Amino acid sequence: MSSLETEALLAPRAVALIGASRDELSAGGAILRNLAAGRPTFDIYAVNPHSVEIEGARWFPDIESLPEPCDLAIIAVPARHIPDMIGKLGQKGIRLAVVISAGLSDENGLKPAMLEAAKVAGVRILGPNCLGVLIPRAGLNASFAPTDALAGGLAFLSQSGALATAILDWAKARNVGFSAVLSIGDMADIDLPELVEAFGDDPQTNAILIYLEGLTNGRRFLEAARKVRAKKPVIVLKAGRSQEAARAAKSHTGALAGSYDVYRAAFRQIGIVLVESLDELFDAASVLSRITSSPGDRLAIVSNGGGAGILAVDELSNLPGRLAELAPETVSKLDQVLPPGWSRANPVDIIGDAPAERYRGAIEAVLGDNGVDALLVMSCPTALAATAAVVDEVIRTVERAGNGKPVLACWLGENNARLARDAFSHAGIALFETPDDAVHGFSYLVQAAAKPLADHVVPHRRDAEAIAEARRIVDGVREDGRVVMSELEAKQLLDLFGVPVVPTRRAATPGDVAVACEHMKPPYVVKIVSPDLTHKSDIGGVVLGLADPQAAKAAAEAMLQRIRKRRPRARLEGFSVQPMIQRKRAHELFAGIATDLAFGPILMMGAGGTAVEVLADRAIRLPPIEREEAEAMLGETRISKLLAGYRDVPATRRDSIIDVLLALSELSQALPEIAELDVNPLLADAEGVIALDARVILSGCPPELTERSQ
Amino acid sequence: MSSLETEALLAPRAVALIGASRDELSAGGAILRNLAAGRPTFDIYAVNPHSVEIEGARWFPDIESLPEPCDLAIIAVPARHIPDMIGKLGQKGIRLAVVISAGLSDENGLKPAMLEAAKVAGVRILGPNCLGVLIPRAGLNASFAPTDALAGGLAFLSQSGALATAILDWAKARNVGFSAVLSIGDMADIDLPELVEAFGDDPQTNAILIYLEGLTNGRRFLEAARKVRAKKPVIVLKAGRSQEAARAAKSHTGALAGSYDVYRAAFRQIGIVLVESLDELFDAASVLSRITSSPGDRLAIVSNGGGAGILAVDELSNLPGRLAELAPETVSKLDQVLPPGWSRANPVDIIGDAPAERYRGAIEAVLGDNGVDALLVMSCPTALAATAAVVDEVIRTVERAGNGKPVLACWLGENNARLARDAFSHAGIALFETPDDAVHGFSYLVQAAAKPLADHVVPHRRDAEAIAEARRIVDGVREDGRVVMSELEAKQLLDLFGVPVVPTRRAATPGDVAVACEHMKPPYVVKIVSPDLTHKSDIGGVVLGLADPQAAKAAAEAMLQRIRKRRPRARLEGFSVQPMIQRKRAHELFAGIATDLAFGPILMMGAGGTAVEVLADRAIRLPPIEREEAEAMLGETRISKLLAGYRDVPATRRDSIIDVLLALSELSQALPEIAELDVNPLLADAEGVIALDARVILSGCPPELTERSQ
Repeated sequence: MSSLETEALLAPRAVALIGASRDELSAGGAILRNLAAGRPTFDIYAVNPHSVEIEGARWFPDIESLPEPCDLAIIAVPARHIPDMIGKLGQKGIRLAVVISAGLSDENGLKPAMLEAAKVAGVRILGPNCLGVLIPRAGLNASFAPTDALAGGLAFLSQSGALATAILDWAKARNVGFSAVLSIGDMADIDLPELVEAFGDDPQTNAILIYLEGLTNGRRFLEAARKVRAKKPVIVLKAGRSQEAARAAKSHTGALAGSYDVYRAAFRQIGIVLVESLDELFDAASVLSRITSSPGDRLAIVSNGGGAGILAVDELSNLPGRLAELAPETVSKLDQVLPPGWSRANPVDIIGDAPAERYRGAIEAVLGDNGVDALLVMSCPTALAATAAVVDEVIRTVERAGNGKPVLACWLGENNARLARDAFSHAGIALFETPDDAVHGFSYLVQAAAKPLADHVVPHRRDAEAIAEARRIVDGVREDGRVVMSELEAKQLLDLFGVPVVPTRRAATPGDVAVACEHMKPPYVVKIVSPDLTHKSDIGGVVLGLADPQAAKAAAEAMLQRIRKRRPRARLEGFSVQPMIQRKRAHELFAGIATDLAFGPILMMGAGGTAVEVLADRAIRLPPIEREEAEAMLGETRISKLLAGYRDVPATRRDSIIDVLLALSELSQALPEIAELDVNPLLADAEGVIALDARVILSGCPPELTERSQ
Repeated sequence: MSSLETEALLAPRAVALIGASRDELSAGGAILRNLAAGRPTFDIYAVNPHSVEIEGARWFPDIESLPEPCDLAIIAVPARHIPDMIGKLGQKGIRLAVVISAGLSDENGLKPAMLEAAKVAGVRILGPNCLGVLIPRAGLNASFAPTDALAGGLAFLSQSGALATAILDWAKARNVGFSAVLSIGDMADIDLPELVEAFGDDPQTNAILIYLEGLTNGRRFLEAARKVRAKKPVIVLKAGRSQEAARAAKSHTGALAGSYDVYRAAFRQIGIVLVESLDELFDAASVLSRITSSPGDRLAIVSNGGGAGILAVDELSNLPGRLAELAPETVSKLDQVLPPGWSRANPVDIIGDAPAERYRGAIEAVLGDNGVDALLVMSCPTALAATAAVVDEVIRTVERAGNGKPVLACWLGENNARLARDAFSHAGIALFETPDDAVHGFSYLVQAAAKPLADHVVPHRRDAEAIAEARRIVDGVREDGRVVMSELEAKQLLDLFGVPVVPTRRAATPGDVAVACEHMKPPYVVKIVSPDLTHKSDIGGVVLGLADPQAAKAAAEAMLQRIRKRRPRARLEGFSVQPMIQRKRAHELFAGIATDLAFGPILMMGAGGTAVEVLADRAIRLPPIEREEAEAMLGETRISKLLAGYRDVPATRRDSIIDVLLALSELSQALPEIAELDVNPLLADAEGVIALDARVILSGCPPELTERSQ
């Protein structure tokens, strides 16, 4: 979006509602009422062939008769009229149109017609098929939402109009304010990355919240979010997690990663905070709308109910953030203001009958502790102290302390919370009703403050010669009309990028197998070579531990017979021969590249071997990655715990594994045509790593081929 | 509790408040106000040496002057007076006293004094150190909670008074009613199992909710809950999960199981529903207070917002319960009442502008589908339809359908929900504000309806001779003044209970090792025998793959030198010799018995080998278990996926593993003095299982011994 378009949205001079109506149960009517009901800083033009008289708006029969300047149009007319309207808006100099109407599709041709008209006319489009937009700072409510929005620091972008109304309703009840609420509909023209960038640049926006159903170009979104992320938090609720999993990529390795796993990995990598429910989105909104400072992760808790404190600690143990340890001086200070039975540790249990003064003493002591980054004050309803007095005292004490540490409040019970809500809201203290919500809220502050690992990836580059050689391998495969590399080609590719591979030779016949063995140390491993057999060991296509060349030859002959019988249609192209690697205490890992529908190439690693699918132990990252990110990736796998060594098994050389991940990252960047790359098993022990087998598939592979090769 | 005591609590004829006061900021004052403010079905006696005049209560200067009959006393006087008061209550024939006061401890002697007085006087005590009790059906609010309770079907037992007030506040705002709310305090006399049984028998209680901080006798609680569970759901929120983990059992195997894991396993086994936050407790209370029927697990969703439906499905995929599949006839019916763009599947998206009639048509069609067990109706706030009309229509439609299927509602947005709350409440429809809460609510219905596996365990009994022989082994160890069995003794014990063990011989000297080998097939394994060395392989106390008796002898000699040097203080008692079991594709498991602080003996199993602690893969059950439960236990481990076989690795004989679990279950029952038993590794493959090593520790083991043996 250009600055002109952004200005048209955030500070319009005049807004034209095309399809304005007096019927409040129609979209055009509900929007007109909402437009006029605000305190608009702009003129409102109600456009309809039939007269529409309403206070606060001027009627015009058509677009042609609109006065200038008018910079924002809201369109709520039947779909078939829209392409024509867009053209007329362009002629009037209107640069931005919010299309509420549904019914524009590729199938009926209206969507391409609208986009073409927009291109010709120089009009940008938000929508179609959306609820509209609210810009509270401008008094703009151009939506058919039943609730308006307070002005504040949150930009909320929603791929669902209905959920936007739910958020608006919730926010109104809790005094949470917005810089903008946009129902983004089908995103036919202006898309999410553009909007993220626009609100990233908007000084009135402190944090961007997104309800997301799916991305078509995940990389662009991430680029936009990465830029914004340096300035303000981006929080995403991704819906359709379970469905996404079912729509898993067809390709074999791809099937290991349900795409929600990829969303999660990609978002974490960029530093986007991912929430998993509307409750969590509310929690995040509650704190981020009120607190813009970035605290450390050490939370102190002051509570008049021991149980409530325990529940908060329980939940905190599952989340980013930790319990602060109180300094001895703080404990001494608390000894002076609290009754003898107090907990003498964090959470600070100030006992059920705590009056306002006791809250004051406890809060002062705790906020003064340098080991405390943030404070959660809790109150269970009690008849033995007056809630209003406690709330006032808490607010005054926090203000007097004035050390900028974030303070969150949890007033348990709906009624109890309601009594406290307005006062806390005015004081800028985020209020929650349950310990879980409060602790989640704190964790979003911590997450929003965390520096993403991958802020500036400057990947190390392999020398040009290796890349040129790798390209020659890829081109050779293409020239053969293949998409699947042979094992030898795949290993050669890995070798070029510095991944240790077991030396492997090709042999056309069993006789050649014996010859190949002469160049290696026994015992030997012989495998069948066939573009049609991927899991060779399942059909007896791999024989291990062959003691001498003659045994290897005999094994190759038997293998040939066996496979010809079991898979008569498979093309057999000879054998590969390699020395058998015997590293008794090595762990079997896998590492690879796969292609995700939304994000393109991804890196994966985890426990490997033939049980790789059953183990389902994997970490995911989007390339390129640097060493630190590769470390984090390895650390996420379950098998990484074993790699640290235990009992008499020495630690594995993690650096060698990291090197493989970095090599694969480079490979994916240098050769984007790699759709799938599997190193499995990758043996890892105290000596380093070695790849025993590898498989590479180039893009352009028809799905049926991949399936046949299973 | 006897029926007399239960009656005194649930339907008192007269209630005496000892320590009544007019100061409402004192406990005695707040309780008096609450007592009088209800619609009591009983007389209220305010006892205080000084006159206390308040409407609805009669003042008495002391207990002696109370009129009879009076069956319930509430005590809110300083702790030191309480033992004396209890005696006087007994003389008045009062059988039940709720002690509000804190400050009675073992240290100051007041707690034993109170209990002694109670025993002598025949008075049962609830508390001390509690908030009081509310029995809404009797108009009884003998608590200092700021909120009273509506009458209803939930019994809430809380180990925290403050959390009871939070629940009361929340429930009042949502029209959730209670059969009883009891703050149970320190449970010096009447304990949780007694109360669970009492409310299990109470016909006015539909479900029992418990906030639990800890159990001293977990088995008794489980016995009570198991009985009740057959009649009504029991839901527990267990606090202190993270602390409990830190307070893990000292013993080695015990340390593998943080006790919260044991709570979770035990509760699941009995069919207690465990929730993990106050939000989840609210969700459970919302449905269980309104719905007493037990549905199947297939949920249909009707929503005017596609996004809200997707969020519900996302969460459902993590929970018990599943999405119903609509019958083709249902889809046809829906085609007739919904606009063309509807989802044509469950969730049924009836589009944002859905008026009341569209809800009616959709609900009728869906409730009529035999493949649907329960319905969730959702509404996102919209300006295009009147909420009140939708709510009324939903209620009428559900009533007309009248087929008893549970219906839950989710009105997103606080304001939206508030408009619907009263109407849904009167209609007995549980209302939620977010998709997650609604789906959780449904999942508690499903869980409450699920039959626990372990309802009637009739464990198979080993023959008496084996048990007698096992006891002789145990007694022999005891007579030696030991608590740790030798490897040979442990294996013998397992063998007696039918667990296949590798044949093992004892050898006093390296020379004897060679002799022992003559009786076995090579290769051999030689291990050191020492009560002080538990993890023998860590210090070179295990040598594998010895090809002949001479090699075994030489290995034993070298081992002796090595260990004498590294652990000069360890007592070395010779060697054990066994054939080396070579099962290449066998999985290494562990299985064992440990002792939990709250629940006593527990069974554990999971991935084994030397990495057992690192893998942290374990399932837990309380013995005794039957085959079905053992199957479920095995199924919970991560390694069980590998046991099913994959690629060219054949499936393991699961029945052999199950047999081991059942044998350990019997062992734990027959020999309760076993504090710890470890079978690790237990090799498992297509041939069956075999235990390669075993370790048994009897109870009475001082913790320092266990630690030294690490």
